[in-house]
Amino acid sequence: MQWRHKDLLGLEELTAEEIDGILEQTRAFREVSQRTVKKVPALQGKTIVNLFLEPSTRTRASFELAAKRLSADIVNFQESSSSLAKGETLKDMARNIEALKVDCIVMRHASSGAPHLLARCVKASIINAGDGAHEHPTQALLDLFTIRDKIGKIEGLRVLFVGDITHSRVARSNIWGMSKFGAKVTVCGPRTLIPYDIGSLGVNVSHDLSSSIRECDVLYLLRIQHERQRRHLFPSNREYARFFGVNESLLNGARKNLLVLHPGPINRGVELSGDASEGPQSLILEQVTNGLAVRMAVLYLVSGSGES
Amino acid sequence: MQWRHKDLLGLEELTAEEIDGILEQTRAFREVSQRTVKKVPALQGKTIVNLFLEPSTRTRASFELAAKRLSADIVNFQESSSSLAKGETLKDMARNIEALKVDCIVMRHASSGAPHLLARCVKASIINAGDGAHEHPTQALLDLFTIRDKIGKIEGLRVLFVGDITHSRVARSNIWGMSKFGAKVTVCGPRTLIPYDIGSLGVNVSHDLSSSIRECDVLYLLRIQHERQRRHLFPSNREYARFFGVNESLLNGARKNLLVLHPGPINRGVELSGDASEGPQSLILEQVTNGLAVRMAVLYLVSGSGES
Amino acid sequence: MQWRHKDLLGLEELTAEEIDGILEQTRAFREVSQRTVKKVPALQGKTIVNLFLEPSTRTRASFELAAKRLSADIVNFQESSSSLAKGETLKDMARNIEALKVDCIVMRHASSGAPHLLARCVKASIINAGDGAHEHPTQALLDLFTIRDKIGKIEGLRVLFVGDITHSRVARSNIWGMSKFGAKVTVCGPRTLIPYDIGSLGVNVSHDLSSSIRECDVLYLLRIQHERQRRHLFPSNREYARFFGVNESLLNGARKNLLVLHPGPINRGVELSGDASEGPQSLILEQVTNGLAVRMAVLYLVSGSGES
Repeated sequence: MQWRHKDLLGLEELTAEEIDGILEQTRAFREVSQRTVKKVPALQGKTIVNLFLEPSTRTRASFELAAKRLSADIVNFQESSSSLAKGETLKDMARNIEALKVDCIVMRHASSGAPHLLARCVKASIINAGDGAHEHPTQALLDLFTIRDKIGKIEGLRVLFVGDITHSRVARSNIWGMSKFGAKVTVCGPRTLIPYDIGSLGVNVSHDLSSSIRECDVLYLLRIQHERQRRHLFPSNREYARFFGVNESLLNGARKNLLVLHPGPINRGVELSGDASEGPQSLILEQVTNGLAVRMAVLYLVSGSGES
Repeated sequence: MQWRHKDLLGLEELTAEEIDGILEQTRAFREVSQRTVKKVPALQGKTIVNLFLEPSTRTRASFELAAKRLSADIVNFQESSSSLAKGETLKDMARNIEALKVDCIVMRHASSGAPHLLARCVKASIINAGDGAHEHPTQALLDLFTIRDKIGKIEGLRVLFVGDITHSRVARSNIWGMSKFGAKVTVCGPRTLIPYDIGSLGVNVSHDLSSSIRECDVLYLLRIQHERQRRHLFPSNREYARFFGVNESLLNGARKNLLVLHPGPINRGVELSGDASEGPQSLILEQVTNGLAVRMAVLYLVSGSGES
Repeated sequence: MQWRHKDLLGLEELTAEEIDGILEQTRAFREVSQRTVKKVPALQGKTIVNLFLEPSTRTRASFELAAKRLSADIVNFQESSSSLAKGETLKDMARNIEALKVDCIVMRHASSGAPHLLARCVKASIINAGDGAHEHPTQALLDLFTIRDKIGKIEGLRVLFVGDITHSRVARSNIWGMSKFGAKVTVCGPRTLIPYDIGSLGVNVSHDLSSSIRECDVLYLLRIQHERQRRHLFPSNREYARFFGVNESLLNGARKNLLVLHPGPINRGVELSGDASEGPQSLILEQVTNGLAVRMAVLYLVSGSGES
């Protein structure tokens, strides 16, 4: 595939063909992590910066390992947003990082659009590792890869997202990605956690998990953020779990070959019971494995494009 | 040597022959750090995770350097235990890390037995870098190596451990290790810091440092943790130092070729005076140097076993 | 050049010839970061420790990338100074790090002279990455390199430093460095921020920025530390900016080919307006780029000298 973009900011702006290209590259790299020597020299001498302005361990580590398996040099910048507050702008910071002659900046930021701003200020490639409630493209790519790896296609699949849709960049990136491939997406959750205009993204809305779960091929559970509870968007974890938590008995009412996905880390007993998370339908650990391969593919494609 | 274990969890479960094998491998690797080019390709393409759920700088850095000198890729996970508290279990976290296709997880945890739990959940090798008050096997291995490097043997040596025996994983691992090689171990400290049933480990107990110090070949001082004082297990650092602190004048009453060890970092003027810590009998810095070689050996042996 | 020193502690003790040698080496390494493969094997198998006992992101990252572009192994030690307080001395810590057989320790410390103390305790090379209000030699080296790269010489240049001279290690290192090459240095700022005996360093003093700015070739703005304001050394950022902040209109009164430098990160609207920081006279981003090359040169020179 010929990758034509400097950055990877979101799935909204990509075509199905472009997403396809990333997933093909992912398949090639997934094999690297299964070897005894889990390393290729593809990005030898390239420099990648992990710029995480919101705390993260897993996504940061997944990108760090992806870079190392491609033989790139990677440096972590885990500044608190407060250091930016001392008179320096995000643009200043990014241009300073670029002046170190880096090839790629992987960025997480609490504000939607922050990576897009950076992408216009610097020549280095920007990979969005999560911007506010907007997009988390590598997560959606790994989800698409995982589903297609199991079922062989995305087209026509009925996908049900359950949880806090309003605040979920994971849901938003997936809705864009899956819709491009012809999946039929339904979102499900308490009214307080679903945007009133979500229909404009072409999805259906449900507030009844037990009936919706019977009619889907892929069940995607979002992580309940405890901060939301404190803001009174739902009464308690216990009440959430009663109406929107998934357990074995609920899964018994679903299709036999239903796939269960979750972006991790899971809240056992809230959105998902422990049993269900380890059941045969759960793809949660395959998502993690595939996530590393997706990030290798994305780092490789954007760094390659930077050269031409 | 043929290493047969997936993990290194403690010295209690190893035979003297197995410990011997690790120490032989250590000798081979210690030479690497004396070269101009301090690096061998032994673990090229292997991935190691430093999972430290208790704060640590030195042990973490020693493992990190050991991995780098073996050409492995290493990623640090320094999660606070609080991130685990948000609904995720330790097992979930470990299985997520393993899904990144890592070969080895080096783990420190505040709870005894945590690495043993992990070792049963994941296929990756687990190295215990300290679990609660239970074991710290690489520390005891480096101590055994250091003593044998100086004296040529462990058998028959009279070893005196001084300090907070109750809370010391260093003491516990060393007692198991040294006993297997036929050393005679005595523990010494205030009654509040020695477990009442310590005799079941086959050691003698003393509460009189000045007389015990005259009859030992190896003096091993444990670090006084200031947190203990706050819990009123002893009245003050000053009083501790008066009865159980070691200084030059106390050493004058000991054997001329006594060896003094300490796991570091030392509290100057509490368990050990500054002069004594830098005296000719002190092996403290050799312990640090040998610690890196021990960790290279352990990483090498467990990673090799993972392949077969 | 033949580099004869074990350490790089400051510019005060170097000759102009020695500084020249570092700058020549810098020129050679600057080219590496412009390649597609930004890496040379010069320090393969060497170990460098970043020991930052004061918070820092940029200088730490600049040294980390410099080490990686030279193929060295680098480990970050970012201890809080509090961990030292628990009975361990700085000397103990340094000797422990050295016992890991490291070649070079890059050190930042809040106290003037701390790296000099270390340099006497350990055989490893010490690079001062900022000690209190004393020196920050790699910053001054990159400033000298940047100016000479633009103008071709330092001799005879009129350089104006503006800001908190009292607390600035950047100013102090630069004054020593520039004076050795025959520049004429003036310092400018409120009386509370200029040491009364600064004349002993051979510099002129001004309290009137708008007149001094007309007569300089290089304008060097120091970062205003907000902590100073809290200690009432000046009334407010707004008042500081009114009398000592630089903006486009002030630059209009200066020489056309004036150079503007700042060590970063800038406080937009305090010591420098946003427009001026991005204007054609600003060398701020080139300073960052050259800083990495200077650090490669310094790491290379001191690590080489350690071998002989």
